[in-house]
Order: sequence, then structure tokens, then C-alpha cells
Amino acid sequence: MHPLAQRVLDGDLRGAARVMRLIDDRAEGHIQILKDLFPHCGRAQLIGVTGTPGAGKSTLCDRLIDHYRKQGKKVGVVAVDPTSPFTGGAILGDRIRMQRHFTDDNVFIRSVATRGALGGLSRSTTDVARVLDAYGCDVVLIETVGVGQDELDVTRTAHTTLVVVPPGGGDDVQANKAGILEIADVFVVNKADREGADAQVRHLESMIALGREIKAGQIRAPLTHVVHGAVPEPIVPADDGSWSPPVLKTVSAKGTGVAELCEAIEQHRAWLDTEQGRTRRARQQQDQLLAQFRDTLIEEALDTLGPRIAEAAARVGEKQLDPYSASEELIAAFRAGQPRPEPRP
Amino acid sequence: MHPLAQRVLDGDLRGAARVMRLIDDRAEGHIQILKDLFPHCGRAQLIGVTGTPGAGKSTLCDRLIDHYRKQGKKVGVVAVDPTSPFTGGAILGDRIRMQRHFTDDNVFIRSVATRGALGGLSRSTTDVARVLDAYGCDVVLIETVGVGQDELDVTRTAHTTLVVVPPGGGDDVQANKAGILEIADVFVVNKADREGADAQVRHLESMIALGREIKAGQIRAPLTHVVHGAVPEPIVPADDGSWSPPVLKTVSAKGTGVAELCEAIEQHRAWLDTEQGRTRRARQQQDQLLAQFRDTLIEEALDTLGPRIAEAAARVGEKQLDPYSASEELIAAFRAGQPRPEPRP
Repeated sequence: MHPLAQRVLDGDLRGAARVMRLIDDRAEGHIQILKDLFPHCGRAQLIGVTGTPGAGKSTLCDRLIDHYRKQGKKVGVVAVDPTSPFTGGAILGDRIRMQRHFTDDNVFIRSVATRGALGGLSRSTTDVARVLDAYGCDVVLIETVGVGQDELDVTRTAHTTLVVVPPGGGDDVQANKAGILEIADVFVVNKADREGADAQVRHLESMIALGREIKAGQIRAPLTHVVHGAVPEPIVPADDGSWSPPVLKTVSAKGTGVAELCEAIEQHRAWLDTEQGRTRRARQQQDQLLAQFRDTLIEEALDTLGPRIAEAAARVGEKQLDPYSASEELIAAFRAGQPRPEPRP
Repeated sequence: MHPLAQRVLDGDLRGAARVMRLIDDRAEGHIQILKDLFPHCGRAQLIGVTGTPGAGKSTLCDRLIDHYRKQGKKVGVVAVDPTSPFTGGAILGDRIRMQRHFTDDNVFIRSVATRGALGGLSRSTTDVARVLDAYGCDVVLIETVGVGQDELDVTRTAHTTLVVVPPGGGDDVQANKAGILEIADVFVVNKADREGADAQVRHLESMIALGREIKAGQIRAPLTHVVHGAVPEPIVPADDGSWSPPVLKTVSAKGTGVAELCEAIEQHRAWLDTEQGRTRRARQQQDQLLAQFRDTLIEEALDTLGPRIAEAAARVGEKQLDPYSASEELIAAFRAGQPRPEPRP
């Protein structure tokens, strides 16, 4: 075993922080450490927290940390941030709201930046969550911004994913309705003391009901009538053993509704142990491996090809070559090239 | 030349629609058609329209179509939609606002859905935009939802990218500030007859100014003070030959400000012919090839590996194998496998 992996397993804070820096830098040997840690992963409860900007995700995370700390649990947080093209690093932003926990040794907060033009976010995030798991965290919160493809990948890592939205007519939720229905295990209408909270709850519930009806084959039409705000009736209950995401209201600034939210998270965790839950978890794990495979494949292709990509782009720019043939040539070159062995420590 | 490629070049509407269906289905022979069309691309002006949900992008696109149609131009629209997991198709949603143009033979509107768990959005979108270009469209609008990684990829295709935001305190813009600064050629504060329009303009202008200062090396700090709302003064003008995105106000429901917006788009197009503009365009084209290479690589890897991925996932699920070794094994198998030749028509 890599000595740093041993330090993580021993609960050594500095050791864990060092491993995370190695992951950030994609430094030599970090894969070996992750391989060593993997058999010791799987103990932590991973909770994804995603949703629209301005919904108050960070404040809610702060409350969740409080809740789990009061139960004596060790808590990890992976905060996923868009990369700044200026600094190359993570923007802390409103993560500052969690900062009072920085002095608590049993709370480990780590920001993860996106990785340049080609993504790779999901891999870093999953890696860091695994280190926190192996390090001994009982709960790991994975907070992401937005609900794009990257976030979809990230939430596959979590056992339970909360989608946090502000009150209102559902405008924000509109944009990626299908994606949200796919990832939400629990909906949270935060800032629920503001106007429009109940309207948002109704909007989400009708969206969920419609989603169930479509899945059950009762409606074959696309989601246009949700988009246009019609409310289908009656709501179909989840009586077939599947999970229907509850819609909860919280005011995280005051802590209102957080206990109920944690209860819903526990219920979902229990559901994951049912037959349908296990099937879903297995599918998620397959999707996650696929995402990791994709990220690793691209990283290795870029390493192998190096300057050939810029050369091909120049030829495409001068119209000497079309981009389709260029891609084919690059892939052939990658497949013919030597695989780069992961250096052993 | 493929007969369908010839039909596209001849301006045959049904031929173009058929090619786009082949692209959607990734049908045999579609790559050959795209290769045939590529030398005839490059005439259309590609305009990206992105921004936050609810900002009124579709209505704005509708106005832009009007504007260019009045100039006698042939207009294409590529509307990028999240895939519904229920229908597998594109959700039309508020694209309905553009529907009065559906009967105009010189307006070609096409929805593109995202492509499953592994993205691939950028490739489909670029392909469809190229077909519209070769088909003879003078202007192609590429409308995307949100500003995630996929949208970053998509906007690389465009000559000029508009970032459309609603009035307000900038909460929505907050989420991906750095990403927005990177892609915006022109900022549009739409619905500018509502409260908060001027505040949003000031917010964006200070963000742009700060971005320039940081690029110029005057500030090395991360963007935290933008995140917290401080306004840096004075605003640094773009007197060094680079492009500084103007911030314009529109009320697209009434058509207010659309002429000025089109003027700004023309100015940006003219700037692309300067030395700095050409450098930027070349970099964009390189990024675009990289994205296309990535999508093609993954597609080919999935084709080659087939059921081996599910087998590996099952072994990872049972902890017989760690996901890092699984990825390495899959990549080695892909590289050792036979490349799949693109079938000739």
C-alpha cells in the first residue's frame, strides 16, 4: 500500500489533504493511491446537493453539516466550482457561508474546480469523495452549481441527490426539466418564507406526477404541457415500489425544515436497500464508471497525441483537411500509439 | 460526392432535412456527407445565443430572424434542447414562440437534443450548423439553454456569441461568472423595461472591467470581490485592439434595441477580421476540433467495447475490481481493438 493511502485510512488530516492536492494536480502516483483506497470505500453516505443558482445551496449545506455534527458524525464537503479562466483555481464565492466549520476538525471542506475545456469534473469529484469516504467521513455532501451534464455526472456519485430551488413560478426549473426529474431524489424549495413557495411546490409536484404518468405509458406526448404550466390531475402515487421524490420546504437561513429534510434523506437511503433501489444504484454505478472511463480516455488521448492536435487544427483552419477526417486520423494515431503506463510510486 | 450532399448544396429543403435526420440518428454515411459539405462551409455568419433560463432567448431569436429576413437573408436556427428521458426527443417548449416562422421557406428551424449520458451535444450542433451553412443560410442562430460545459462547446462554433440575461441583481450570472466572461462577445440585458435592468448593466460592466484588469495582470486575486458585489473603478477601455463585450438593453417582446444589437453583432464580425480577431478565431477553431475529437473518440470507444463496459461495471459493483483499473483495462482493450471504418455510401 502507498504510504499516503495508509495515512488516509489512519484518519490523518494532513495526509488526506495531500492526497487531494495530488488528485488536483493529476500528479504521478495518485491513481495508485486511489486504487489502494477503493476497497475501503463504501461506508460513507454520499449526498448530492444541486439546483439553480441563488437557491441557497451553500446555506442549506451549512445546516446539514450542523445536523450531522450534532449526531457526532464526521462530515466531508466537496464543493464543485466553475474554473476561473483567470486564476485557474476554484472560486470560493458564497462557500464563505460554510466557513465557520473550517475550524472544526470533524468537518472537511474541499473545493474542486472544473478541468479546462474538456470537462473531467466528474472524475475529480468522485475521487475526492472517495478519499473523504476512506478517510472516515460518515457523510459526504457534494455541492454542485447548476444542472448541466457535469452535474448529472457528479450526482451519479451520490446515494441521494437533493435538488434545491427557490420559490417562484418554476422559470428556473423549466430549463432542464427532464434532467432534473432524472437526478432528483428529494426536491427542496428553499427560502420558503418568500412569496411563491407553495406555487413552486405545486409546480414540482405536477411535474413529478406527469413524469410518472409518462413513464407508466399513460401519456406518450412530450413534456410540452408542463412547459406551458398545465397541471395534470390526479397525482399518481408511488405505490409500485419505485421512489417518488418528495417536495419539501425549508428556510435554511433559519434552519426551518432541515430535520424533515434529513428524515427524507434517511427514507431514501432505506429505499436504496429495496430491490428497486438496488437496481437503481447498480445502474448509477455503471453510468459513473462510464463517465470515469470517458474522462480517463480523453486524458490519455491528449497525453499521447500532444502537439498533433494543434497541427490538425491548423490544417482544418486552412481548409486543407476537414474536421471529420482530422478526428479519424487523431483517433487512429492514438490507438496505434503506446499506452502510457501509470507510474508506480 | 454523396447525392444528398449535392442536394444540400443545391438548396434542396427536403434534402437538407434528410441529412439532418441522418445526423440525429448517427446513421451510416452521414460522416461522408459532412466531409463532402465541409469545403463549401464558411459562408454563413454563425451567431450563438445563450444565457440564463427565463431571459427571453427564444423571443430575442424571433426578433433576430425578423431583422435578417427583412434584409432578404436566409436564416437557419439550431435550437439545442435537453433530452427528455421519457421521449428521447427534443422538448420544444417555448421554441413555440418562433413558430410563426415555420411557414417561411427562408427560415429553417431545427432542434437538436443532447445525446445521452456522455454528451456529444457539441458535435451534433456543429454538424447541423454546417449543413445549414452549406445549404445556403446567410445567418445561423445557435440557441442554447444555460451556460454549462456543453454550451461552452457549442458557442465555440459561433462567430459571435450573445449572452442574454434578465434584469436583476446578477444572482443568475453569479453561478458561472468566469465561464460567461469567456464566451460573451455581446451582453444583452433583455426585458429591460423591468426593474433592475440598469443594475444588471452596471453589474455586467463592472464584471467585464474586472476581468480585463485581471487579464492585464493588474489584479491577481480570484474573482471573490465580484462575487461579493464590490464594483471596481475605473472601467478600463478596450484600447489595445482586443474586444470588450458591449452591454446592451433590449425588450425583445417589443423589438426595442434589436437594431442596436444587430449593429453590435456586425461590429464584432468586423473585429474578427483584425489580427487579434483572427487569433481568437483560430483558437476557437482549435477548441472546437478538440471537442469534436473528444465526442468522436468516445463514440468509437463505446462502439468498440460494447458489452465489456457493463461487465466491468458489474465487477466494480461487486468490488472485484477498482474503477481505476477497470478504466485502464477498457482503454487498453479499445486501443488493441480494430478501428471501425466509416462505411462509404
